[in-house]
Amino acid sequence: MAKKKDEGSRVRDALRITGELPDPGSAPVGPGKKPKALAKLGTAGERLSALQEALYAEGVGGGGRNVLLVLQGMDTSGKGGTVSHVLGLVNPMGVRYSGFKAPTAAERRHHYLWRIRKQLPVPGQIGVFDRSHYEDILVPRVSGLLSAEERRRRYSEINAFEKELTDGGTTIVKVFLHISPEEQLKRLKARLETPEKHWKYNPGDLEARSHWPAYQKAYADIFEKTSTGYAPWHVVPADHKWYRNWAVAELLIETLAELDPKFPQPDYDVDAELAKLKGVGVPA
Amino acid sequence: MAKKKDEGSRVRDALRITGELPDPGSAPVGPGKKPKALAKLGTAGERLSALQEALYAEGVGGGGRNVLLVLQGMDTSGKGGTVSHVLGLVNPMGVRYSGFKAPTAAERRHHYLWRIRKQLPVPGQIGVFDRSHYEDILVPRVSGLLSAEERRRRYSEINAFEKELTDGGTTIVKVFLHISPEEQLKRLKARLETPEKHWKYNPGDLEARSHWPAYQKAYADIFEKTSTGYAPWHVVPADHKWYRNWAVAELLIETLAELDPKFPQPDYDVDAELAKLKGVGVPA
Repeated sequence: MAKKKDEGSRVRDALRITGELPDPGSAPVGPGKKPKALAKLGTAGERLSALQEALYAEGVGGGGRNVLLVLQGMDTSGKGGTVSHVLGLVNPMGVRYSGFKAPTAAERRHHYLWRIRKQLPVPGQIGVFDRSHYEDILVPRVSGLLSAEERRRRYSEINAFEKELTDGGTTIVKVFLHISPEEQLKRLKARLETPEKHWKYNPGDLEARSHWPAYQKAYADIFEKTSTGYAPWHVVPADHKWYRNWAVAELLIETLAELDPKFPQPDYDVDAELAKLKGVGVPA
Repeated sequence: MAKKKDEGSRVRDALRITGELPDPGSAPVGPGKKPKALAKLGTAGERLSALQEALYAEGVGGGGRNVLLVLQGMDTSGKGGTVSHVLGLVNPMGVRYSGFKAPTAAERRHHYLWRIRKQLPVPGQIGVFDRSHYEDILVPRVSGLLSAEERRRRYSEINAFEKELTDGGTTIVKVFLHISPEEQLKRLKARLETPEKHWKYNPGDLEARSHWPAYQKAYADIFEKTSTGYAPWHVVPADHKWYRNWAVAELLIETLAELDPKFPQPDYDVDAELAKLKGVGVPA
């Protein structure tokens, strides 16, 4: 059993952020080549789907647990692609996707966690945050609009918020999709050169890119201050889409396998119901 | 072009409810055998996915249109299976799933449309209602708790509500998954005989089944009173899961193809941005 437990957190352990980030083009754990990664993602789909169904069933049966996947990363790091290729493997009934863009004027009148709280997954669901409350540190910090005091307060609030969610039955999986500036340049160019991708491009992306080192520094600080025992950060090298998809799928599988969701025991007498069914006719 | 238009609503026209329902085991339009239906669903997945991406992009670009799929049917008619097999074909980013169970005490203190309105899709999304506001006619009516006057009022309110949604840019696709009582009996039995399916069974299902003719009558009345030009009802014979999945996918494809969503025109100068990209270095 000990071996199984170790095996069960192999990818999470390898990708947990503890200091220096791995190379965005590397494959620190698991398949190092595209064909093998694609094959493994196929198998992963079945396991993920089965685990998700059990979690969903547990929720229907009154269980209070759920999972929240938090995806962060620079523009073009593949947050949307991850949702499509990894969450696309499971039943949409059990997935709650929420994308967070720049807050609206109405949202800004509330505490920054207000809009986040409205999108939390319910029991049995896998919630997905495409960007999240971490943007409320990143963006104002890089823009020079966040005082050191306010930054400390937000770290503290976010850690308390995530503790509260964890206590309430949520397992939080925080993932930083790590791309290189070279790869980002290629992807931005592809968006501009392909008319069907024009909508994914925003001139503001170049502005954000010009602050690349400041963003990396802000992320490093976030990882240090908000990698808690109950909600650690993971890094997924994301220059290779095939590695990114495989790795996020595995992080979810390991998380769900550890939760070990159970199909609920019936709260009715199965044999009695079967007997009733035998006596049931076909309505006229 | 006239031919194309006709072809483009072939399935919707064939499945539109105008009077008598087709046999639940029949295939009134499209593939009549399982292998062909499965093959066609594979192709349908690509088309549906491409159309959904364009609708999503249109929404990001400021377009206001979306689609709302309303799934109704007796227990075991396959509402959940449809979501898994049909909506599972597209990017979860663009799907908003909402299941409506018996209203909670808190929900009952509001108008029955209150909780429905909170789950409406935003621009670019495909919303999916697994049961809907139609339950607020069906259940109280079969239970004898809905006066004729209140029933008329609800029809009127629902038609006005759906008109409002349509005016606001929503295309509503209402689908009745039509199963036979014989097929329901098989499916209920399978749920009781398979431990992993016990959670899907509810002793109340037999109670509802005992009112089968009353439900069919209530549905027939709903189809008559709420099949409007802007939000018609469709029937999908659902004794065969392969037919059901193919048919719902086609209804969505025809609907989306008619909307003909367009990738938005960029609101920036593509060439200027490309030129800027050329001058952009790799951050240190």
